[in-house]
Amino acid sequence: MRTVHQYDIFELSFTSSDEGPVTGEGIFSKNGKEYRVKGFKDGEGCRLRFMPCRTGIWNYTIRCGGREEAGSFRCTEAPAGIHGPVRTAGFHFRYDDGARYLPFGTTCYAWIHQPEETQEETLRSLSAAPFNKLRMCVFPKHMPYNYNEPENFPFLKKPDGTWDIHKPESRFWQNLERRIAELAERGIEADLILFHPYDRWGFAALSTEECLVYLDYCVARLGAYRNVWWSLANEYDLLPARTFADWEQFGRTLAETDPYHHLVSVHHCFLPCPKADWMTHCSMQTGHVKNALLWRGEYQLPVIIDECGYEGNIEFGWGNLSAFELVHRCWSAVCTGAYVTHGETFYREDDVLWWAKGGVLRGESAARIRFLKELLSGLSGELDPLPPPQWLPNPYERKPDSAEGADGISAALSRMSETERNRWFVELSPTRIGSPDYRLEYLGRACPAFYDLELPETGRYRLEIIDVWEMTRRVSPEEASGRMRVTLPAKEGIALLITRLSGEVLGQ
Amino acid sequence: MRTVHQYDIFELSFTSSDEGPVTGEGIFSKNGKEYRVKGFKDGEGCRLRFMPCRTGIWNYTIRCGGREEAGSFRCTEAPAGIHGPVRTAGFHFRYDDGARYLPFGTTCYAWIHQPEETQEETLRSLSAAPFNKLRMCVFPKHMPYNYNEPENFPFLKKPDGTWDIHKPESRFWQNLERRIAELAERGIEADLILFHPYDRWGFAALSTEECLVYLDYCVARLGAYRNVWWSLANEYDLLPARTFADWEQFGRTLAETDPYHHLVSVHHCFLPCPKADWMTHCSMQTGHVKNALLWRGEYQLPVIIDECGYEGNIEFGWGNLSAFELVHRCWSAVCTGAYVTHGETFYREDDVLWWAKGGVLRGESAARIRFLKELLSGLSGELDPLPPPQWLPNPYERKPDSAEGADGISAALSRMSETERNRWFVELSPTRIGSPDYRLEYLGRACPAFYDLELPETGRYRLEIIDVWEMTRRVSPEEASGRMRVTLPAKEGIALLITRLSGEVLGQ
Repeated sequence: MRTVHQYDIFELSFTSSDEGPVTGEGIFSKNGKEYRVKGFKDGEGCRLRFMPCRTGIWNYTIRCGGREEAGSFRCTEAPAGIHGPVRTAGFHFRYDDGARYLPFGTTCYAWIHQPEETQEETLRSLSAAPFNKLRMCVFPKHMPYNYNEPENFPFLKKPDGTWDIHKPESRFWQNLERRIAELAERGIEADLILFHPYDRWGFAALSTEECLVYLDYCVARLGAYRNVWWSLANEYDLLPARTFADWEQFGRTLAETDPYHHLVSVHHCFLPCPKADWMTHCSMQTGHVKNALLWRGEYQLPVIIDECGYEGNIEFGWGNLSAFELVHRCWSAVCTGAYVTHGETFYREDDVLWWAKGGVLRGESAARIRFLKELLSGLSGELDPLPPPQWLPNPYERKPDSAEGADGISAALSRMSETERNRWFVELSPTRIGSPDYRLEYLGRACPAFYDLELPETGRYRLEIIDVWEMTRRVSPEEASGRMRVTLPAKEGIALLITRLSGEVLGQ
Repeated sequence: MRTVHQYDIFELSFTSSDEGPVTGEGIFSKNGKEYRVKGFKDGEGCRLRFMPCRTGIWNYTIRCGGREEAGSFRCTEAPAGIHGPVRTAGFHFRYDDGARYLPFGTTCYAWIHQPEETQEETLRSLSAAPFNKLRMCVFPKHMPYNYNEPENFPFLKKPDGTWDIHKPESRFWQNLERRIAELAERGIEADLILFHPYDRWGFAALSTEECLVYLDYCVARLGAYRNVWWSLANEYDLLPARTFADWEQFGRTLAETDPYHHLVSVHHCFLPCPKADWMTHCSMQTGHVKNALLWRGEYQLPVIIDECGYEGNIEFGWGNLSAFELVHRCWSAVCTGAYVTHGETFYREDDVLWWAKGGVLRGESAARIRFLKELLSGLSGELDPLPPPQWLPNPYERKPDSAEGADGISAALSRMSETERNRWFVELSPTRIGSPDYRLEYLGRACPAFYDLELPETGRYRLEIIDVWEMTRRVSPEEASGRMRVTLPAKEGIALLITRLSGEVLGQ
């Protein structure tokens, strides 16, 4: 009996006279639970892939063109460090085996469309980097710094020069799945972008029917890779050929046909896609990362700011953030209970910019993101925002005798439209997460010389002053309780971490 | 015949049996044009003040309690450097004599309520500083760092302990007008804040009638000072005792009764006051200074961001900006065609923070503001924003073959509400002002390594790369024309100044 590791791929080859690109069906069962997967054409042959998520004996039946073949295999426990597909858990993520997953992604949109040696260089860079998710496109990319022609395309062409969506080009897909597997080996989720607007070849203008054929093929061929995420689009709202009904249909199709229920999102430029049942999390674009506070409330889903701008020095505003600014946005996002994705756009005469082509990481933010990621991994409790001191905070509340000003703020806010009030809520809310056992507040670009702390009197708490740029954690003091004024360095990029050592849990 | 300089004060004393606080009337005429001013009680006596804005012989009649007295005086030309009251001119300001006035104010809300030696120290600091406007309150201030009791109050008290608005306290007003005059000597406009919410004495809760008596007194007593501006309020929207109708009435009253038509504005916290006829300019509070682009359009008035946050290190978000951040906001405001006001809030054990009490300037932004002010003073042409490349800019427009993305942006924007679209307009607009003879673009926190310049082919232009923090202006190249790529230092706080030397005027 064949043996396969849990979360690895059990693959079969077969023949089919179907036109394709998807053909045949496999039914995999264990303990009465059935999974249906489709086969797919790969050149002249056909393959069928299944990822077992549970250990034990699996039975299967393959049906194709009236023929039927049955068999079974043994699924053995995953090797250490392999946790399976990522799932959502409330506003956060966990692997299939329950291990915590904190997404810290980066972006190489078109890395699989570059020459082999660049792809290999990208993998080497990723191996040494702190990132555990990669935003990457299936289709090639046409945009400044991205005018080179790719070697392979996902489909063959018809005699009239248009794409034959029913004829996948094996070399393209073999490379893509090899890269996905190589990412998996490095613990990196492949956040596969299925559509995007930066196109000169016609992939942004496929018909709805063609898109569905393509999606069907993606699910059949790539779904068995444990680290696949489905991102319906990069900047869905910039694709004029697509309607809302298309996105709705594509999302629903993935949710219904992907037997593994990989994560599904859709990324926007200007207009976030409204909440839909098939959406597992928010994949957002904004430089104003604190907006995640509103999105959490509106979507009731985990929020990833998948594009908050890039560390770099090119001519576009989204691509010339200082390293500090990107680090600042990462901390701001995390301390509102969201996650965030990195990218780099340093000008190169050879046009190999990390954000699109991969290659080599050149910036200073990645090291700081590693520091942040390791700090967060050590916290006991979820990364949920603490409520502001009041629903809308009042900076004067500590002085009851100045209530006139305070009442005035409430009155002014009550006269606003909800949209305006929400903007103030975001603006005035602290960036602060916590649990009963810790509290982490990021002070952003604020430069206070001190902080007035109010801890429970009946416990002991450790305070750390964190410099997000210098990557230092200074314990001061080792044990505290009650009210105290803490001296701060009065510079940008400071965070405070309070950890409960004993006694009363931390309040809000 | 008495002689008075243009823009100085012609003052008369008289007696009146009226209750006051305003009594008698003076009619001043020249060339058939009449100005009516009211007299006011000052202790036991009465005074009447008039500021002649034109040279020559002025005739006057003073009427009080049925008595009438006539006379005349000669007004001689203002000494060099005295330009009279500031007026608006489109989106900008000029003195009464036509000289250009670029407001670069600072903030010492409660400086006149501090001990004499602190007031003197504040004046010395102002003498050495680049500021030419001072935001200051008539009423004392109650707020963190401002709990000390002032020595003098503007009114005497009734036997029941409430303020007798009809009984001004001479010592208070004599000090106030002395300070206004001392500011005038230093070329500093006194932006007098008439009401504010930070109060424990009852000044924020006067009746509407009492407010009008107080305003009448202010106009009679202070209107003849050339450097007076009327700011109806600091944070008008945080005064629960006041209605919109009050502000409307106060503004109209000032516009109608002040014969000199000093500037009138009203400053907000959350909700900008809607445009009104009596409003001469916008006095705004925001950290998002580029919003001035929208306010210019909406109000069709000059915009001053009178509060954009303070350089400092206290606990409040508005009071712990880095010096760079404040300088950045100043440049951003100016390069959207607005003006901006400085302030400092450095923690002091003695509670003497510049923003409220004055004293000594400690920060690093003032020197940079001087640099900015001097640079702007040298530009030929008004400081008006240039339109964005298209109404809403498209970062991809230089590549016509990527029109798909570009069309998508237009389509996405067209689907937005006007409010949302306006926010994008602000977000995406460059901070860039210019005239036919110069163009000044501030690149903000963007860190591009180069800039692609498109100058007319048939002229010669000087390019300067400005470091707003280091206060350097590097000419590079001395003469340019046509298209060229300019190398930049790829750091935050860079501006580009293009000056026409000859030939075709600069386009947009």
